[in-house]
Amino acid sequence: MQLLNSSKNRYFVFYIIKIDKKKKNVENTLMKTIKPYLHKVNYYETDKMGITHHSNYIRYMEEARVDFLDQLGWSFIKLEEEGMASPVMSVEGVYKKSTTFPDTISIMVGIEKLSAAKLTFSYEFKCKDEVVFLGKSTHCFLDAKGMPVLIERRYPEFFADLKAIYEAGKSE
Amino acid sequence: MQLLNSSKNRYFVFYIIKIDKKKKNVENTLMKTIKPYLHKVNYYETDKMGITHHSNYIRYMEEARVDFLDQLGWSFIKLEEEGMASPVMSVEGVYKKSTTFPDTISIMVGIEKLSAAKLTFSYEFKCKDEVVFLGKSTHCFLDAKGMPVLIERRYPEFFADLKAIYEAGKSE
Amino acid sequence: MQLLNSSKNRYFVFYIIKIDKKKKNVENTLMKTIKPYLHKVNYYETDKMGITHHSNYIRYMEEARVDFLDQLGWSFIKLEEEGMASPVMSVEGVYKKSTTFPDTISIMVGIEKLSAAKLTFSYEFKCKDEVVFLGKSTHCFLDAKGMPVLIERRYPEFFADLKAIYEAGKSE
Amino acid sequence: MQLLNSSKNRYFVFYIIKIDKKKKNVENTLMKTIKPYLHKVNYYETDKMGITHHSNYIRYMEEARVDFLDQLGWSFIKLEEEGMASPVMSVEGVYKKSTTFPDTISIMVGIEKLSAAKLTFSYEFKCKDEVVFLGKSTHCFLDAKGMPVLIERRYPEFFADLKAIYEAGKSE
Repeated sequence: MQLLNSSKNRYFVFYIIKIDKKKKNVENTLMKTIKPYLHKVNYYETDKMGITHHSNYIRYMEEARVDFLDQLGWSFIKLEEEGMASPVMSVEGVYKKSTTFPDTISIMVGIEKLSAAKLTFSYEFKCKDEVVFLGKSTHCFLDAKGMPVLIERRYPEFFADLKAIYEAGKSE
Repeated sequence: MQLLNSSKNRYFVFYIIKIDKKKKNVENTLMKTIKPYLHKVNYYETDKMGITHHSNYIRYMEEARVDFLDQLGWSFIKLEEEGMASPVMSVEGVYKKSTTFPDTISIMVGIEKLSAAKLTFSYEFKCKDEVVFLGKSTHCFLDAKGMPVLIERRYPEFFADLKAIYEAGKSE
Repeated sequence: MQLLNSSKNRYFVFYIIKIDKKKKNVENTLMKTIKPYLHKVNYYETDKMGITHHSNYIRYMEEARVDFLDQLGWSFIKLEEEGMASPVMSVEGVYKKSTTFPDTISIMVGIEKLSAAKLTFSYEFKCKDEVVFLGKSTHCFLDAKGMPVLIERRYPEFFADLKAIYEAGKSE
Repeated sequence: MQLLNSSKNRYFVFYIIKIDKKKKNVENTLMKTIKPYLHKVNYYETDKMGITHHSNYIRYMEEARVDFLDQLGWSFIKLEEEGMASPVMSVEGVYKKSTTFPDTISIMVGIEKLSAAKLTFSYEFKCKDEVVFLGKSTHCFLDAKGMPVLIERRYPEFFADLKAIYEAGKSE
């Protein structure tokens, strides 16, 4: 697996090289370019302090996460249609600078932690090239009966993709 | 049915007198006092203009409607548990004066129109004794299969209560 | 002024031909293409009925209105920076069909009414080529002191643009 | 300062005994009973998973914090009127159990950390006698010019009250 983090154009690029073990060579190169998610702050998201209300950032994290999974090819709705739920176990966020209407916030999603049953996303919010917020959210996966699901076992390809991004993030 | 609309203390009071037809006299007097619903404007509901964002009034209408049905003894959740849905068909509102954090808005709910299948609520929002907003919302009732339900037939007692309030409102 | 409403590709196109009265000929042709505003329904905008909560449509109306004014070259923020406020005087909406996450709603903004001091926008929400919501909102303009502003006098070019769209809408 | 934390009735009670130094005796006993803040989950706060959307908890934290400061006699709006802002520096929360409409959540606010310039609130959300969420938020204080304010110096009595609650929380 190779990684190219082109910070200039603010795109996160990673390669997953799948090696056909029998043929002992590189068979297939899958390149997925994860673009940052853009959220234009809405007027109704500001408060009387004149800035984006801090609670909205938790919502933008969800928007970015959904978009990230869409880009990865594992859309949230697809998982949900299979009866899967992915409840939020915890969130945290550090506010660095305020934003306001009509700023556009650019959000990069990464994978901070990954285990067979749990997943922690990281979020970097930038506005006008400055980091304005850093967030994390931890999720588990539940099946239609509300029982915990081991993603590694149930969705091995999804897990592999998440793992690739996790590894890419570590080597940055 | 008698009506007492004590506008001074801002409470809407109505009596439903149920007459035992056999005994030909007033058997039971049911008095229901519908209190106005109070919403304290939250900081996160203000916008950068320094006022309560107008979209929140549509949400307060729902809060007041839910509370109104609770007070009437026909809680929304009870209907929902029976598989009923009550989607919003239309809303409208006129903004008279702005409010802001930490104002408390007092909301009186009335019934503007009532037919076998449709129901229009009216809302009067007051803050510091002044009318700040007047709203309306129209609803129908759907069963678990999404089919329209005639409340008059399916919930005759509920319909009777709604009718009593509707009549009370007209005679004001 | 000529109008081309290409309903097939769902774009609203209009031409404003400014005539130089001295030269008695067409001097300048300004073409502005107003694209529909797209809102992807967020997960947090749904409710336990499984659909987009109706109150959010009032917010989408604002998003679309802001975008419309941006496209027109009269951004909301520019007006606000000049000390102008544009409070909402009234809203109304009719819900035709429900939407849900992750639907994309396409919103066309038009001008329903226009006077020297008041402005009514109309909104047509479509999802999967079907009209899901029709809305209206009326606004006035206030200066920094909270006094009503006659847009026709204070912003004659803005008023002219609004008028052109209003006229275009009427002749549809 | 004496403390009585009556956990059974879920009220947090503390005494601040102000000693008149000249008379060398207990002059005045101020008892402040901080009641938990109650939030009834609104229908519009649920999502298509059928539960209260997690982002709303960050808003309930604010509601509870505002109420806590009101009960303490240091209302947020009073501080704001003096030109003070109290931006959120960070938030975090752990979701234990889901809630939904029309649950009532009971929120106890405490003070986790306190320094001359920074303040961390803790939040315990209970529903039906079970802990459903634990949160924290850290705040600083800025004056009208956006400069950090040492609450200990500028508002010594406010700081003393916060300190009393902080100490009370520690000795639990």
